[in-house]
Amino acid sequence: MKIPFTKMHGIGNSYIYINAITHEFDASTFNELAKDVSNVHTGIGSDGLIVIHSSDAAEIGMRIFNKDGSEGQSCGNGLRCAAKYAYEHQLVASSLFQIETKAAIVTVEVYGDRACIDRVTVNLGSPSLNRSSIPMIGPDDNQVIAERFDVASHALNVTGLFLGNPNALFFVEAIEEAPIHELGALITDDPRFPDRVNVGFIEIISRNEMKYSVWERGSGVTEACGTGASAAVVAAVLNGFIDKGTDVTVHLSGGDLDIQWADDDHVWMTGPAVTTIQGVFYWKRQALKE
Amino acid sequence: MKIPFTKMHGIGNSYIYINAITHEFDASTFNELAKDVSNVHTGIGSDGLIVIHSSDAAEIGMRIFNKDGSEGQSCGNGLRCAAKYAYEHQLVASSLFQIETKAAIVTVEVYGDRACIDRVTVNLGSPSLNRSSIPMIGPDDNQVIAERFDVASHALNVTGLFLGNPNALFFVEAIEEAPIHELGALITDDPRFPDRVNVGFIEIISRNEMKYSVWERGSGVTEACGTGASAAVVAAVLNGFIDKGTDVTVHLSGGDLDIQWADDDHVWMTGPAVTTIQGVFYWKRQALKE
Repeated sequence: MKIPFTKMHGIGNSYIYINAITHEFDASTFNELAKDVSNVHTGIGSDGLIVIHSSDAAEIGMRIFNKDGSEGQSCGNGLRCAAKYAYEHQLVASSLFQIETKAAIVTVEVYGDRACIDRVTVNLGSPSLNRSSIPMIGPDDNQVIAERFDVASHALNVTGLFLGNPNALFFVEAIEEAPIHELGALITDDPRFPDRVNVGFIEIISRNEMKYSVWERGSGVTEACGTGASAAVVAAVLNGFIDKGTDVTVHLSGGDLDIQWADDDHVWMTGPAVTTIQGVFYWKRQALKE
Repeated sequence: MKIPFTKMHGIGNSYIYINAITHEFDASTFNELAKDVSNVHTGIGSDGLIVIHSSDAAEIGMRIFNKDGSEGQSCGNGLRCAAKYAYEHQLVASSLFQIETKAAIVTVEVYGDRACIDRVTVNLGSPSLNRSSIPMIGPDDNQVIAERFDVASHALNVTGLFLGNPNALFFVEAIEEAPIHELGALITDDPRFPDRVNVGFIEIISRNEMKYSVWERGSGVTEACGTGASAAVVAAVLNGFIDKGTDVTVHLSGGDLDIQWADDDHVWMTGPAVTTIQGVFYWKRQALKE
């Protein structure tokens, strides 16, 4: 059958978007559909599937399914694209609205024409700074800021926090020399992080600019992780490299994000959202209800 | 701008197809367009771009552009999909017709409804068996059949031939044990093959069934190579494992092909062609002439 879809990406993090508000889908097919659309050889090719659905708690809702068919919690780059989609398709009235995800209700604001939104701001809420909320094993429930962290004969200093996902952040002199391939897989699975962890490396360029590379929990090295880049800005403030309330440009391998840890404790992430395909996907199974 | 396209695959070998018969494209954009559509992060995701165009020498013509933007010669899996596209879009009248490629004029036959072709046969022409036509360096211009071939302390026996591409074939007891990762890159770049070579490993199952794995020249391990699988059947006949004129089922990791080296010396390859997407690609550049 033919399934109408849109493919969008935020700094290289791409998803297939389907509209479960204007079409009635069989939700039991989403896991298998996510696997099939993500396959670049026999499907479309993406990091997963995002289903836009109606919500009682917010203007719209979204569900994220990963490449392997499992359901995810949230995704900063996916939120920006979902916001663009909702506004351009007139699923919401105002350019400032809320999206319900499995993790939280998120406020978003889109910028540009109704016909062509190019930038979106997402309010990721407040970071959780205590050790137990990362979660990370340790002697007490303090904040984890530049704490000695030994791994595979490297003596590192880790800053840990939760922001949409668990994050372990490490500052390096030059991002090109970050031991991401050597240590990424080791740290993400380290028993000190019971829920596993996104492993981020940060190079501070100035008091409002940094570079960030990430080993994503469950995915490995990726082009972009919006929530991880936001956690990196919080870590830089905690370590005194950047002032709270400053707009920070974060360079990732897929592009740039503008991030601020605001004085009210909320983290705001602004970045691009791009439509690459509009079309129909030919699927072997029935996904739309007739 | 919006570029109408179809994505199709033959046993996992996927290309983006654009129609330069019904739309007038700026051909100088094809190299860059191929790179951009192939990128799974910021484009569509594929092994390249195939342009269907009008031809003076055959019913239609096709040009293939690889992921890296370079123009290719021919592709068995791409030919099947191009044939399906041409017939379903009524660019040809008969189910038996010819396609001009950069390498040759190829006869194809499609099977099924006008609305939904599911299998296609391609006549790949006659293989070239002399050493110089592979090309392979050696003492004389004989056929290369089970010839001693030493590489990296392995004593192998190679069968070599040209069929759309240069091919070096090796018979193994079990395809899972073929040293494709260990030797593929070494053999493809071996100086005895001045134009480089597709490195194929074959497990004979019976006198009409085999398994085939390939390290493709310029691509590495791929799911499927239609011309390489066809060369594997020719090599099996040359070595006495299969009779000429027999229909052979070849199992590749992406699916099965039916291949016959016919008594008239032509090689016929039959296999599936599947449409996965129909849509428009949003591109930063102008590709269609107004």
